[in-house]
Amino acid sequence: MADRKIKIAVIGASGYTGADLIRLAAAHPRMEIAILTANTHAGKKAHEVFPHFSALELPPLIKTDDADWRGIDAVFCGLPHATSQEVIKSLPDHLKIIDMSADFRLRNPAVYEKWYGTPHKALDLQKVAVYGLTEHYRDAIRKARLVACPGCYPTAALLMLLPLVKDGLIDASDVLIDAKSGVSGAGRSLKQNLLFTEAGEGLSPYGIASHRHAPEMEQEISKAAGREVIINFTPHLIPMSRGELCTSYVRLASGATVDDLARSLESAYRGEPFVHLAPEGITPATQFVRGSNHVMLAVYADRIPGRAILVSTLDNLVKGSAGQAIQNFNLIFGLPETSGLEQVALFP
Amino acid sequence: MADRKIKIAVIGASGYTGADLIRLAAAHPRMEIAILTANTHAGKKAHEVFPHFSALELPPLIKTDDADWRGIDAVFCGLPHATSQEVIKSLPDHLKIIDMSADFRLRNPAVYEKWYGTPHKALDLQKVAVYGLTEHYRDAIRKARLVACPGCYPTAALLMLLPLVKDGLIDASDVLIDAKSGVSGAGRSLKQNLLFTEAGEGLSPYGIASHRHAPEMEQEISKAAGREVIINFTPHLIPMSRGELCTSYVRLASGATVDDLARSLESAYRGEPFVHLAPEGITPATQFVRGSNHVMLAVYADRIPGRAILVSTLDNLVKGSAGQAIQNFNLIFGLPETSGLEQVALFP
Amino acid sequence: MADRKIKIAVIGASGYTGADLIRLAAAHPRMEIAILTANTHAGKKAHEVFPHFSALELPPLIKTDDADWRGIDAVFCGLPHATSQEVIKSLPDHLKIIDMSADFRLRNPAVYEKWYGTPHKALDLQKVAVYGLTEHYRDAIRKARLVACPGCYPTAALLMLLPLVKDGLIDASDVLIDAKSGVSGAGRSLKQNLLFTEAGEGLSPYGIASHRHAPEMEQEISKAAGREVIINFTPHLIPMSRGELCTSYVRLASGATVDDLARSLESAYRGEPFVHLAPEGITPATQFVRGSNHVMLAVYADRIPGRAILVSTLDNLVKGSAGQAIQNFNLIFGLPETSGLEQVALFP
Amino acid sequence: MADRKIKIAVIGASGYTGADLIRLAAAHPRMEIAILTANTHAGKKAHEVFPHFSALELPPLIKTDDADWRGIDAVFCGLPHATSQEVIKSLPDHLKIIDMSADFRLRNPAVYEKWYGTPHKALDLQKVAVYGLTEHYRDAIRKARLVACPGCYPTAALLMLLPLVKDGLIDASDVLIDAKSGVSGAGRSLKQNLLFTEAGEGLSPYGIASHRHAPEMEQEISKAAGREVIINFTPHLIPMSRGELCTSYVRLASGATVDDLARSLESAYRGEPFVHLAPEGITPATQFVRGSNHVMLAVYADRIPGRAILVSTLDNLVKGSAGQAIQNFNLIFGLPETSGLEQVALFP
Repeated sequence: MADRKIKIAVIGASGYTGADLIRLAAAHPRMEIAILTANTHAGKKAHEVFPHFSALELPPLIKTDDADWRGIDAVFCGLPHATSQEVIKSLPDHLKIIDMSADFRLRNPAVYEKWYGTPHKALDLQKVAVYGLTEHYRDAIRKARLVACPGCYPTAALLMLLPLVKDGLIDASDVLIDAKSGVSGAGRSLKQNLLFTEAGEGLSPYGIASHRHAPEMEQEISKAAGREVIINFTPHLIPMSRGELCTSYVRLASGATVDDLARSLESAYRGEPFVHLAPEGITPATQFVRGSNHVMLAVYADRIPGRAILVSTLDNLVKGSAGQAIQNFNLIFGLPETSGLEQVALFP
Repeated sequence: MADRKIKIAVIGASGYTGADLIRLAAAHPRMEIAILTANTHAGKKAHEVFPHFSALELPPLIKTDDADWRGIDAVFCGLPHATSQEVIKSLPDHLKIIDMSADFRLRNPAVYEKWYGTPHKALDLQKVAVYGLTEHYRDAIRKARLVACPGCYPTAALLMLLPLVKDGLIDASDVLIDAKSGVSGAGRSLKQNLLFTEAGEGLSPYGIASHRHAPEMEQEISKAAGREVIINFTPHLIPMSRGELCTSYVRLASGATVDDLARSLESAYRGEPFVHLAPEGITPATQFVRGSNHVMLAVYADRIPGRAILVSTLDNLVKGSAGQAIQNFNLIFGLPETSGLEQVALFP
Repeated sequence: MADRKIKIAVIGASGYTGADLIRLAAAHPRMEIAILTANTHAGKKAHEVFPHFSALELPPLIKTDDADWRGIDAVFCGLPHATSQEVIKSLPDHLKIIDMSADFRLRNPAVYEKWYGTPHKALDLQKVAVYGLTEHYRDAIRKARLVACPGCYPTAALLMLLPLVKDGLIDASDVLIDAKSGVSGAGRSLKQNLLFTEAGEGLSPYGIASHRHAPEMEQEISKAAGREVIINFTPHLIPMSRGELCTSYVRLASGATVDDLARSLESAYRGEPFVHLAPEGITPATQFVRGSNHVMLAVYADRIPGRAILVSTLDNLVKGSAGQAIQNFNLIFGLPETSGLEQVALFP
Repeated sequence: MADRKIKIAVIGASGYTGADLIRLAAAHPRMEIAILTANTHAGKKAHEVFPHFSALELPPLIKTDDADWRGIDAVFCGLPHATSQEVIKSLPDHLKIIDMSADFRLRNPAVYEKWYGTPHKALDLQKVAVYGLTEHYRDAIRKARLVACPGCYPTAALLMLLPLVKDGLIDASDVLIDAKSGVSGAGRSLKQNLLFTEAGEGLSPYGIASHRHAPEMEQEISKAAGREVIINFTPHLIPMSRGELCTSYVRLASGATVDDLARSLESAYRGEPFVHLAPEGITPATQFVRGSNHVMLAVYADRIPGRAILVSTLDNLVKGSAGQAIQNFNLIFGLPETSGLEQVALFP
């Protein structure tokens, strides 16, 4: 039993999060990739969709409806939001489900409906889904059947903000998150603004005051603060493929100092394998975590008295998606939390 | 006389701002490039330092001390800060001087000394230098002998903020400027973090709470506000060569709305050839101004009540440096302000 | 009359070649942009399709069928190949036509049909079209009604090869052209391989032994050689937006030397405003011609005796398309050939 | 013993090849990184030089002269060429040495001196060094004390060419290798042409007819051909950090076909874990091997009769350097050849 492989399926294997899940799963000591589904590419080999898998032995892509779930232990779901819920609702009960979409992240169905423009179609499952921010929901994740992995931006922002809000060190109602992401955060869809010629050699904000990761952050920050808060979240599209960095601007609670913030984070993440304060003299950069499951945090005093500048960075496809999914998988199956996630960042 | 060419010199012609000055000057209908200096490259042809000038007829690079200033009308100075002041002090009185360095931007010598770590060495000139933010100092620039062109970041931030502060629409003491710049903003110096392999495919903040463009912005915002303010200015290095975008987070004055901000900007820049509010439906992007002297502005309501998000973008080497320098030159010499600056942005 | 503006139309104004035509035309001293057509975007303002035109006064986009050609002098056509011929056939006789598509480049209808998979639908026009490689067909272009501007790759390759073949210095049947292009060469179409995430940080060949620019080069080289030749043309997609560089590998004719090649090129292009041998010590790079109409050439001896290495570079959207189109326009209308094309390369 | 860690040292740990060696070694199941040397950074922690190592436990950087070699099993040497030979000469006999520099690749001291401009200083070692092109020198590597890992370009080119030359399918005296490399191939040195602003958004050839990887390729191709040959090798600098692709143009031997080439490669690399023919329909791209030890090969018929186009791609820092070094280490120590090298390519 000790060595038995845990059989997994990836639903939505033709997107970037699905692909990064496969990349990591292929090197995981205990995973066996048994099923890959991708409805629009059914019948193709995996390397026809992602040639970087040419050297791997992988099952062919099939339709989700054609999957035989017997003998499968866990499912990773990398579908676009709003399509995951119905698929997941239809899966047999014996499957553990790690969802990388947005469908089960919001606890309040009214908030979901407001931001996604449609009523939720799997409310029973939504109630039992556990928010998969590993470092903050570890115990619940261990016992969960369905884990809703956080968005890439919420992971980067919340790992920084939650300890500080919980410890009462910052004003939760004056949080401004200026976020920057590589283009892979937008997925593999054919949109003009994602062309090399359009996204290259330039940058712009997008989704200003309307990005769907905002309510997810507000849910968690509000919960930590014990009251409803609204935050500013302003993402920017950066000419790089991978990586995400949040620069958050906050007001210190009365009497709190930047050193208090650093101590709070050190205390929250002491012993964590993947979340680290930047060493003395190192400014976080996406380059330092690219391709890895690591998160790098740093806090700075603002020149404006009573304010601080918080920087957090991760790889949006790894800790921001597929890596955190595997971290949660490891928890559920009682494996070392770092299994399959030991990869050092790829630099340069 | 109408057609007489105005003879110019470029001091510091081997840096990127000097090069962009040459690029624009070469196409200017009334300029003649008579002298190029670059002490470390003296004796070389211009195209040996910048091969993209191969097809131009340009004077060779000489040492500044070897220049013969007789017959020269104007000097553009693209030297690094702290070295400009002594060179400029030594220039003959008949020369009009447009300085692109930081040396004459700060009015208060104590502030200069604090941020640059050395006393100013040309205090007499500093007193008469005019701050070259064209749209806000036009009348003074026309009569100036020495114009201190603003830094690239201050130009992007102040064109947005000054009208709003002057009109009392935002709280000048709660201004947070999250800035993003291409790598050319750091000049052509050989630093490890500027290598393609280090700066590519990634991003990071730098100069947190310590960048020298902060006091320059504070000087102008304080003047507009009628009181001393401290701002937050946090720049980030982005994997692109040119372009700069400031996302500023501000608190509205009591009773003010985002529509008021838009009206204030429209009023301030009506008829301006280079500063524009983004058309309906267009989000500013550095791609839309690359290589041009244009600035694109946009204002957005924050989801946090009473707050707004301000976006401004320009090309750091053009409106952020050489282009604005030529705009000021045109003012000084009574030429149409757009002379030599009609280039449309290069996209893609 | 001397100052009368020449009224132009751009058909296919929503593609990159159309856009670069507009960029250059807007700064041309004698052009007036009177009509812009783009069938799928009809009704939009130009800046809704290309926001970098926000600061320009441009006519709205209309359907080609809705254009009123009275008073128009010249038409630039930037449609995809195979769609240009029928549109151009329908244009009134008084219009001069400068076509940037591939439709009228091949003289032999059978070759056209073989490579484009469909019979040509405007054979009468094809017969009178002049190949718009300006430096080699100048006299014919001056008198032409319809100019077929060469492809970007053929322009880069032929400017290098034609003088050498004509002078009998290289073996025309042993020409290998390894070409590298930025992504804008593929246009603005929504293809997965053109996404930033797919084309970034990597490179690959494409169209191996099947690219449609090959027969165009073979037509011209064969004509220069006085016999039918087949060439190797192997393009590669490079992670940059603009620019093209051909490295050609050739066998010297018996007794010929690399110095002979250099002299042949010097002789062919002496006095040309846009085609230059790289100065001593400078290796051609796309960066040195970006955004300009210039071409840089260099020849090198191979270590294999009797062989040479030829390097030519240009901006695929300028000299490779819209710039050369304007150069031909200038010829047709008796203007200085450099009108509107004086822009220096944008570097960095 | 089965589980005993093999203690390694990395000499020259502050360069990119050293860093990638550390990245891979840190995840190797049997390696223990015991010593890191970097003379100019001695005294620093590894993460001060490479912040992406922040989460690893690594020994501090020391001077090579200060290393205590007792208990160390193997040394990886990542020094620049010409400096490796004297350092390696001084190492104690019990150490296995895997050199990633160029110092021991050339068998003929006269050729070394001609291309490197200085006599070799460790001729005794040079004689016994084994060329570390794993797939072609496996048996010798197993028994070697000193392995001279090939250059990145030679690895990419020779894996393609050697089987074809050995099988007599191509003319070894008419081989043209147009190579394209990311900027990391030039190392971490501070050179102007390696700045983001200079190398970005553009490309150029370099080292034309003078690159030091040419004699290395000629040595191996000549050996395979049984006669001295000269090749054309023309590298280009591409705006990406990692990756290398060689497009080789060859003349088929009389009677040989492209299918013969494919069969030759299939036969040569059947069962190889890292060298693969591209699957049907896939064109090799550097993106598909980035960060991995894999090589992708493909052959195409030229339109010129009797000629073929060969494409090979790899990651210059992995199979082109540190990965192949570890592959050789695995051979020497009797480990599975894929140990520590199972990483799938990082895409996007």
